[in-house]
Amino acid sequence: MKLVHDVTIYEVGFRDGLQLESKVLSVEEKLDVFTFFRDANVSEVEFGSFVHPKLVPQMANTSDFYSHIQQFEEEMELVALVPNLKGLEIAKANGVRSVNYVLSASNTHNQQNVRQTTDESLNSFKVLSQFASENGIALNVTVATSFGCPFEGTVPQKRIMKILDTLLLHNIKRITLADTTGMANPKQVYELTKEAVNEWRNFEFGCHFHNTRGMGLANILAGMEAGITIYDASIGGIGGCPFAPGATGNVCTEDVVHMLEEMGVKTSIDLDRLIQASHKLKEILGHDLPGQVAKAGKSSRKYPVPS
Amino acid sequence: MKLVHDVTIYEVGFRDGLQLESKVLSVEEKLDVFTFFRDANVSEVEFGSFVHPKLVPQMANTSDFYSHIQQFEEEMELVALVPNLKGLEIAKANGVRSVNYVLSASNTHNQQNVRQTTDESLNSFKVLSQFASENGIALNVTVATSFGCPFEGTVPQKRIMKILDTLLLHNIKRITLADTTGMANPKQVYELTKEAVNEWRNFEFGCHFHNTRGMGLANILAGMEAGITIYDASIGGIGGCPFAPGATGNVCTEDVVHMLEEMGVKTSIDLDRLIQASHKLKEILGHDLPGQVAKAGKSSRKYPVPS
Repeated sequence: MKLVHDVTIYEVGFRDGLQLESKVLSVEEKLDVFTFFRDANVSEVEFGSFVHPKLVPQMANTSDFYSHIQQFEEEMELVALVPNLKGLEIAKANGVRSVNYVLSASNTHNQQNVRQTTDESLNSFKVLSQFASENGIALNVTVATSFGCPFEGTVPQKRIMKILDTLLLHNIKRITLADTTGMANPKQVYELTKEAVNEWRNFEFGCHFHNTRGMGLANILAGMEAGITIYDASIGGIGGCPFAPGATGNVCTEDVVHMLEEMGVKTSIDLDRLIQASHKLKEILGHDLPGQVAKAGKSSRKYPVPS
Repeated sequence: MKLVHDVTIYEVGFRDGLQLESKVLSVEEKLDVFTFFRDANVSEVEFGSFVHPKLVPQMANTSDFYSHIQQFEEEMELVALVPNLKGLEIAKANGVRSVNYVLSASNTHNQQNVRQTTDESLNSFKVLSQFASENGIALNVTVATSFGCPFEGTVPQKRIMKILDTLLLHNIKRITLADTTGMANPKQVYELTKEAVNEWRNFEFGCHFHNTRGMGLANILAGMEAGITIYDASIGGIGGCPFAPGATGNVCTEDVVHMLEEMGVKTSIDLDRLIQASHKLKEILGHDLPGQVAKAGKSSRKYPVPS
């Protein structure tokens, strides 16, 4: 079993995680959780998205939240999701230095999201990437439904490779292959990521998994075996999937970090502080979170022998 | 990624699963679930244990339940857990053809369970294995805490190998390496199982995992990469762990089968029928079960495009 030596966690709880929560968090509440991320040494945080507040009310205070955390930009990378050029312009106006743009590998899914085919999105991407370049904004692209589409089913690996080929003509910092609705299995993850890593050896690929069908950590294991060292994760495992009510959400940050550290793969994150972040978020949201290590404790936890 | 081609599932829901449930299932209720197992083509079922009914009330009707399902013994292997020679004698008296004996690799854990050190259990095992042999009863041995002990912490791989060495002097059908309280990580699973498989190439090893810290399916992936083809699993993921209240239980049978089938690893189990077994059990127990595929549906499930 060939593994990587260290892994970077890209925390998406504030965006992908909160997006489906019914409770809208105030800036103060977001800051409460953010403080634990800082203490835990989380190095990359997607702090929100510049979408229309009517579409995603949870993201309405993204500018305000950013103005409070911007001062910590030297310690960690703070990234905003932008759905389009307009979002990128708002990001720029707010002084954001790093953005994540999402397009979907599945035509049907992309059309549902932005009323464009994938090719149309790839064409309009030129303008966006140029704008980011000219303004010194680091650009990450997330390729949604890379491992399957809830409408179309299988998305051929060849199609993903072609999309990557087109994207890599542009000035991009990272590409994240995303399993948007938790359809990926470990074999598929290994095969697609291995091909991408082999084809573009020096480019930075990340993976984004959901735990919808319980395979989240197995998929990360498979990704590591293929050489992927960057993983999105959501504190407490919040997130969910609009297509599967009751299903669990993104892979849970503390569960991922726990598994990696147990395996001797370094993350630089303080797991105990991270678990505190999860407890804090649970308290704020007022409901149980899907993450398991925050409930069960670490594997290394010893129990007193009953007398 | 080297994988196995097919996998046998050893269903432990009736024993390890129900053991921690507050509701005691009647024989009729157990039969209701069992019928779905038959329809789903589940080939190995641990149907109960011959322990003192005062210790585990959920197992009190094991004899009665077995008398109803014994007729299906040609279709599937029906196994009873026996804690000691007395349990084995009761199993024999009931006409049981296959038993599972558990001893713990950790002295402290073994002492908690049977008031003996591991070595003492290994010594008294001779009598038990002889009795099984003489009576034509197939004997499986589960080595509990093979991947860690909640009291002692790490259990050295060398210790496990020595226990296996001693056990293999006897007439045993299979040895199951069990992660009794969900402490195993995939790297550890790969290393221990790989060593066991390399050392005793023609012997049948299985693995038993809990999903206490979310690593259940990742551990199965690691086991498959080492060549293990037999896995314990519990319908609906019931089971839990007395040390971690609120934590999830055994790896969930339908989630395991779903992952394997998605990866092209054959199980011979009808997943749709298996999911029905899980729904039935949920109805009987009257609470939500930890399994995720029964909630989210299979990855292959397609959704209508919103108009």
